[in-house]
Amino acid sequence: MYYHDKRLQYPVQVSEPDPAFARMLQQAIGGVEGEIRVCMQYFFQAWGNRAPTPKYRDMLLHTATEEIGHIEMLATAVALNLDKAPASLQAEGAADSIVGAVMGGERPRHIIEGLIHKNLLSTGLAAMPVDSDGVPFNMSHIYASGNIAADMYCNVAAESTGRVLATRLYNAARDEGMKKMLHFMIARDTMHQEQWLAVIEELGGAATQLPIPNSFPQEKEDQEHNYDFFVTSLDGSYPEGRWTSGPSIDGRGEFTVFRNEPLGGEPELGAARPDGMAQVEQTDATSV
Amino acid sequence: MYYHDKRLQYPVQVSEPDPAFARMLQQAIGGVEGEIRVCMQYFFQAWGNRAPTPKYRDMLLHTATEEIGHIEMLATAVALNLDKAPASLQAEGAADSIVGAVMGGERPRHIIEGLIHKNLLSTGLAAMPVDSDGVPFNMSHIYASGNIAADMYCNVAAESTGRVLATRLYNAARDEGMKKMLHFMIARDTMHQEQWLAVIEELGGAATQLPIPNSFPQEKEDQEHNYDFFVTSLDGSYPEGRWTSGPSIDGRGEFTVFRNEPLGGEPELGAARPDGMAQVEQTDATSV
Amino acid sequence: MYYHDKRLQYPVQVSEPDPAFARMLQQAIGGVEGEIRVCMQYFFQAWGNRAPTPKYRDMLLHTATEEIGHIEMLATAVALNLDKAPASLQAEGAADSIVGAVMGGERPRHIIEGLIHKNLLSTGLAAMPVDSDGVPFNMSHIYASGNIAADMYCNVAAESTGRVLATRLYNAARDEGMKKMLHFMIARDTMHQEQWLAVIEELGGAATQLPIPNSFPQEKEDQEHNYDFFVTSLDGSYPEGRWTSGPSIDGRGEFTVFRNEPLGGEPELGAARPDGMAQVEQTDATSV
Amino acid sequence: MYYHDKRLQYPVQVSEPDPAFARMLQQAIGGVEGEIRVCMQYFFQAWGNRAPTPKYRDMLLHTATEEIGHIEMLATAVALNLDKAPASLQAEGAADSIVGAVMGGERPRHIIEGLIHKNLLSTGLAAMPVDSDGVPFNMSHIYASGNIAADMYCNVAAESTGRVLATRLYNAARDEGMKKMLHFMIARDTMHQEQWLAVIEELGGAATQLPIPNSFPQEKEDQEHNYDFFVTSLDGSYPEGRWTSGPSIDGRGEFTVFRNEPLGGEPELGAARPDGMAQVEQTDATSV
Amino acid sequence: MYYHDKRLQYPVQVSEPDPAFARMLQQAIGGVEGEIRVCMQYFFQAWGNRAPTPKYRDMLLHTATEEIGHIEMLATAVALNLDKAPASLQAEGAADSIVGAVMGGERPRHIIEGLIHKNLLSTGLAAMPVDSDGVPFNMSHIYASGNIAADMYCNVAAESTGRVLATRLYNAARDEGMKKMLHFMIARDTMHQEQWLAVIEELGGAATQLPIPNSFPQEKEDQEHNYDFFVTSLDGSYPEGRWTSGPSIDGRGEFTVFRNEPLGGEPELGAARPDGMAQVEQTDATSV
Amino acid sequence: MYYHDKRLQYPVQVSEPDPAFARMLQQAIGGVEGEIRVCMQYFFQAWGNRAPTPKYRDMLLHTATEEIGHIEMLATAVALNLDKAPASLQAEGAADSIVGAVMGGERPRHIIEGLIHKNLLSTGLAAMPVDSDGVPFNMSHIYASGNIAADMYCNVAAESTGRVLATRLYNAARDEGMKKMLHFMIARDTMHQEQWLAVIEELGGAATQLPIPNSFPQEKEDQEHNYDFFVTSLDGSYPEGRWTSGPSIDGRGEFTVFRNEPLGGEPELGAARPDGMAQVEQTDATSV
Repeated sequence: MYYHDKRLQYPVQVSEPDPAFARMLQQAIGGVEGEIRVCMQYFFQAWGNRAPTPKYRDMLLHTATEEIGHIEMLATAVALNLDKAPASLQAEGAADSIVGAVMGGERPRHIIEGLIHKNLLSTGLAAMPVDSDGVPFNMSHIYASGNIAADMYCNVAAESTGRVLATRLYNAARDEGMKKMLHFMIARDTMHQEQWLAVIEELGGAATQLPIPNSFPQEKEDQEHNYDFFVTSLDGSYPEGRWTSGPSIDGRGEFTVFRNEPLGGEPELGAARPDGMAQVEQTDATSV
Repeated sequence: MYYHDKRLQYPVQVSEPDPAFARMLQQAIGGVEGEIRVCMQYFFQAWGNRAPTPKYRDMLLHTATEEIGHIEMLATAVALNLDKAPASLQAEGAADSIVGAVMGGERPRHIIEGLIHKNLLSTGLAAMPVDSDGVPFNMSHIYASGNIAADMYCNVAAESTGRVLATRLYNAARDEGMKKMLHFMIARDTMHQEQWLAVIEELGGAATQLPIPNSFPQEKEDQEHNYDFFVTSLDGSYPEGRWTSGPSIDGRGEFTVFRNEPLGGEPELGAARPDGMAQVEQTDATSV
Repeated sequence: MYYHDKRLQYPVQVSEPDPAFARMLQQAIGGVEGEIRVCMQYFFQAWGNRAPTPKYRDMLLHTATEEIGHIEMLATAVALNLDKAPASLQAEGAADSIVGAVMGGERPRHIIEGLIHKNLLSTGLAAMPVDSDGVPFNMSHIYASGNIAADMYCNVAAESTGRVLATRLYNAARDEGMKKMLHFMIARDTMHQEQWLAVIEELGGAATQLPIPNSFPQEKEDQEHNYDFFVTSLDGSYPEGRWTSGPSIDGRGEFTVFRNEPLGGEPELGAARPDGMAQVEQTDATSV
Repeated sequence: MYYHDKRLQYPVQVSEPDPAFARMLQQAIGGVEGEIRVCMQYFFQAWGNRAPTPKYRDMLLHTATEEIGHIEMLATAVALNLDKAPASLQAEGAADSIVGAVMGGERPRHIIEGLIHKNLLSTGLAAMPVDSDGVPFNMSHIYASGNIAADMYCNVAAESTGRVLATRLYNAARDEGMKKMLHFMIARDTMHQEQWLAVIEELGGAATQLPIPNSFPQEKEDQEHNYDFFVTSLDGSYPEGRWTSGPSIDGRGEFTVFRNEPLGGEPELGAARPDGMAQVEQTDATSV
Repeated sequence: MYYHDKRLQYPVQVSEPDPAFARMLQQAIGGVEGEIRVCMQYFFQAWGNRAPTPKYRDMLLHTATEEIGHIEMLATAVALNLDKAPASLQAEGAADSIVGAVMGGERPRHIIEGLIHKNLLSTGLAAMPVDSDGVPFNMSHIYASGNIAADMYCNVAAESTGRVLATRLYNAARDEGMKKMLHFMIARDTMHQEQWLAVIEELGGAATQLPIPNSFPQEKEDQEHNYDFFVTSLDGSYPEGRWTSGPSIDGRGEFTVFRNEPLGGEPELGAARPDGMAQVEQTDATSV
Repeated sequence: MYYHDKRLQYPVQVSEPDPAFARMLQQAIGGVEGEIRVCMQYFFQAWGNRAPTPKYRDMLLHTATEEIGHIEMLATAVALNLDKAPASLQAEGAADSIVGAVMGGERPRHIIEGLIHKNLLSTGLAAMPVDSDGVPFNMSHIYASGNIAADMYCNVAAESTGRVLATRLYNAARDEGMKKMLHFMIARDTMHQEQWLAVIEELGGAATQLPIPNSFPQEKEDQEHNYDFFVTSLDGSYPEGRWTSGPSIDGRGEFTVFRNEPLGGEPELGAARPDGMAQVEQTDATSV
């Protein structure tokens, strides 16, 4: 179970509110590379973890719990950027409506409105669990396969796309407070990339963990084609690289090249059943 | 651009159609671990690839094109499993409706109907781009970040969850034809896991590729916390592992442990603006 | 604006409630071929119709309004099928829970539960705007292009898939009351297919309406390839048909066959910008 | 920021694992009436709360944090119900595959498979953030309007539908451990219904809080129709009730009845623009 | 069943078309606080209503039918705002494309395009069932629980967020015609808030209706914790209010405060099954 | 199975990159009228095709394969439009971040950012499988009914809305390269509209193909109402047209007009079951 402290994990300060940047930050909340995703992914991996020891369940809970605090920081940052001014100065905003209030002097009203549509209309200028285009986060992005190695790579993928996003936001930020918040979150993403790869390494690295799942006997897979790079170009050309020759990454095979060709025949589903509500012409071989 | 051959990449044969297994196969078509996902992910990564040489664009096109053939094989397998019998024998199915026709003798009609609802009603017993619960595939699962290392880990993640799924389907399969098709697809997943990790290795491995993106100067991130395992347990306990001490995976830091605590203060958004359509009580400091 | 009458457009009677059939009927409510779709599609086409006369707006309103009554009939049918018995007999259902109550004597409890999960848990045994797999209807399926001919074909498509679905449900139905309700709805689908094609005919048929939109001057399109069947097979083979030779349907061209080949070159996006948070290796032509 | 304790808020024990019940429990995790919803709704309401005092922000954080623990309990319950047996006995399950393993002796394999499709194939038998039909939770269900009274009613709605669901699950449960867990969660839903209504009462109840938002001057709304029950029946009949006469709930008006009729004219959008890619016939008044 | 009148429920006039405002109005059509939602919610509640008398079914039908007319008014308003000018003046729009046509003189073309993307490209400048960010309405937002009290609170929540939205739109509107239309719709939202609360009152108010469902015997819920405010702050602090002491809203209990602590133990799912396609290391207690 | 050629089907050139136009092109990739849709629709129709001969399966494969190349062209066009300049000139862009780089001199930074949010943050300036509002393509739009005539009309609908979209994009394009690419794609849409209608004609046209499915015996449908135009206006007025009198399109009936009226009674679902967790008042006929 869980506890909270009212204070934030790290300071979130905004000197000059910027509604357009608020919308960009939404990608880090409700985007597929965002913090709701990693938070929920680590929780569901932890809660469903089956293993001889609770070690990985425990580790996942630490990081999942940390991530709630990251969503909180970003949500605070969005609200502050949608605000005209720091709290104590709000009263002096002379605008006659919330719509007018979010514009700086030089920006045309209808433009800013357009950039923050849903945050403006649905929340009274606060964060939402949506991405920078206003698309709600969909929980199908929570990958938790029950296989610890597959999950660790899913987590590396999440933290890699997450850190790429965070650095793009850092580059786009103008406000020092925002840069500072992001420089902390980028550091945490660095650690989390490391952390999930450390699990793979602790378990033995590629040599023992690949192919994932390592519990499926490799004799049962097609041993003729399991280390082949398949070429589908019309003229048979292909780019040479680490994946076309030499030992495989897991050390169990040798990379080779195979020019793809049909090993199967043309599929035949045959005529439609008379009772299947196809057209009559689909059911009778003589009529077409 | 693209070409096709009417024949399948690998034989797809079904001796005893099994509608329940057809529905399970749907997960490998339209599930988030499925083949539409990897096919489209590799295509969008290829089409958006920016690099000094077209090498990775090319490689991605080979594998993306291969994957169309995998969707095709699975779609064929679903249709055959939804079929009562091979085409030439269909006429003797005595059922008076398509609904009756998909049941084996020993299976109650309404059960099978329930298991394959949408395939039964919407397609005339063919495959759909949905998962095993009938949920349509959503293209937000196509990860293509523009960062080659992030994308490669996304692909490893995709092929790892994909091979876990394929082996579970293999275990669930009874039909020899289905086992054979899957033993081929499992082998291809093995290669694809290897292939994406080979790119990381070719580029220099963790030492040069981490943290992702490696184009963001690490001086700009919070160097105090970028190799810290953050502990959020109430009592400060944590699981020791490769991630709590020793050199980091990228060789640039040392793992340490940090007991999480609020470094920021309590956020203050202040009273709501009078024009924001909050309740009056939210806008006036004296009234609450 | 709109009015209602408490009575149904057509009688809906269920002698033997069948929860499994209730779930199948959900496809006709919230499936992509269902009645919510056509109802909302015709409304949005009407409300957005721009034309010299209000004629088509008016016609669309008649049919859209009719369709509300179809959703109502189906929703009533679902509720009745989820019911153990007619209202007056309910009290004697001896089951100790709603879950027990929906099972007939011969059917295992957990099976029926599984078939109607969400209707059981979320509605107290009533209809929902979801399909037969429990997937909620998504309003992106409302096609209203602002082009009357495009919209009419969208409507023919909707009524064609709708009638295919309705006839499959008819075949699956056992209850006479359900067959009767469906025999009425199937007839309405017949008329609606005719009705939308009648508009095309009234406007002049293929000769004047194709290609859609007919307001785009055909000189501006690539006149070399606008009546070509493109062949993409590796060996150049293709199926001959009405579409490979002879006059085109709109009478403005002659069908011909073109063997597809790359008319464009290889796309070059070049190296990634240094500031785009790609990997360093993507930005420097000398390093890869 | 947040902390965790590895232990659960309340005991979760399962004597006889029941995969079908596991799927029903999914509705309480990822259904629109489920715990992810309330958890995230209270968090986003707290994080975006604007008010003279932090009181309601604080209160919301307590309950949001409590709700994470509820998701955790339910996720644990799903995993245990998908399990054949307590951990120590697992080895003796003689099944040759995970698919076989989840069946009790008397249940046909393909039925159980069908009921738990995605949990079986995607997670290795654990909980997912999906509902009982396998539909992923969509974050658009997080209602946080920035208006405290509107939000409190959203929360009452959430806890009302939530408790209805929990009691249906209680009725469907056979296992004593599951009944016990649910009897705790039902009690918490009771409190939460009370808690949100207590806020309305503390703020002054209907007399000061309605209509919501109370910051919009009622003079600006149409005072002729703001307490009218509109009748749309063809014959003008309507059901009498508390809403057709007597003082309004907020004490500011008197309920009356108004027979609905068109107060506006027929809308005229006119002909389509020549450049809008409608059909030619839509643009020229003389041609239709 | 249903009837229509071509005229609108209330006048919809636009003097100066404003494409940016058109997009904001979309939130009131296809947003989660919008009119499609309430219309369909009341219909599904009506069609599934089970009660000794048809009274509430009837009442719901009146208001659901009214709401179709509201969607119609808003759709008309969107189309008029996307139009350059009143119908009779359209011909003189000198723009060479629909894209140019929607811009006023002072507005840069690409900005307006960006604000109304999908309405511009998909509809020929008409309304769509999407929100102000272009996200299609998802029918999972139709709450109809089968419990009249839960449904009434869902309706109050819908009309509260709906009226908050409508007043924000009113504040953002510049055109007098739009203000007039909204002042009518705001008034109707006032009535609808009242109407649903009137049902709760007619049924006996909180004293008899809470906790919802009131048909679940409260003896079966955990009576130790059903009126406790749970405190999750690390230091045990909490905000005092109406919910921490005094009689509960339903008059059946006394509010108290409970400091949350784990009443359950650490969950143990144990090692993964050998056949579950976890990694080998997850299945063998001796290897990790 | 499938092959590729690195070159494009048709040249894609951009002289002056325009980020706003890039976003509009997204509608043609991931919009419901876009190329992913037709590509996948034709594939699933082909893969599930049941007929006496493989003719239509074959034809569909040719066109589906062609469409992959169309997505590729559009994805290339999006990437080029998001680019500041041709590859060789990129280095001289003086902007200090990718965000700055996509602005032309005269355009305010935050505006352009707002128009291309997700492409900017998630992809490093490449195409995504989303529409022009950033909404991901949802695979429920793949219509493949198993009925060849229904499918052909679905395809005509797809190509009609697709060509309407393409011509709107053509009108909005300023760059000659973009106009050229689109003039090719518009031509292909012309052919594809023809092609699917040619199938209907080859099968016999309306006379044999309607009503769809033509395998359902028309005697089983309600012959009283299958060619009636139903009038729902309050005053009985209706627009006369090809659909109100004269022979039906299929030649099997005569169009007539029927004034809609309730043929069914008022539905009675009766009181709620005591065990259904409705309110007590819903279960007892004497209490309300």
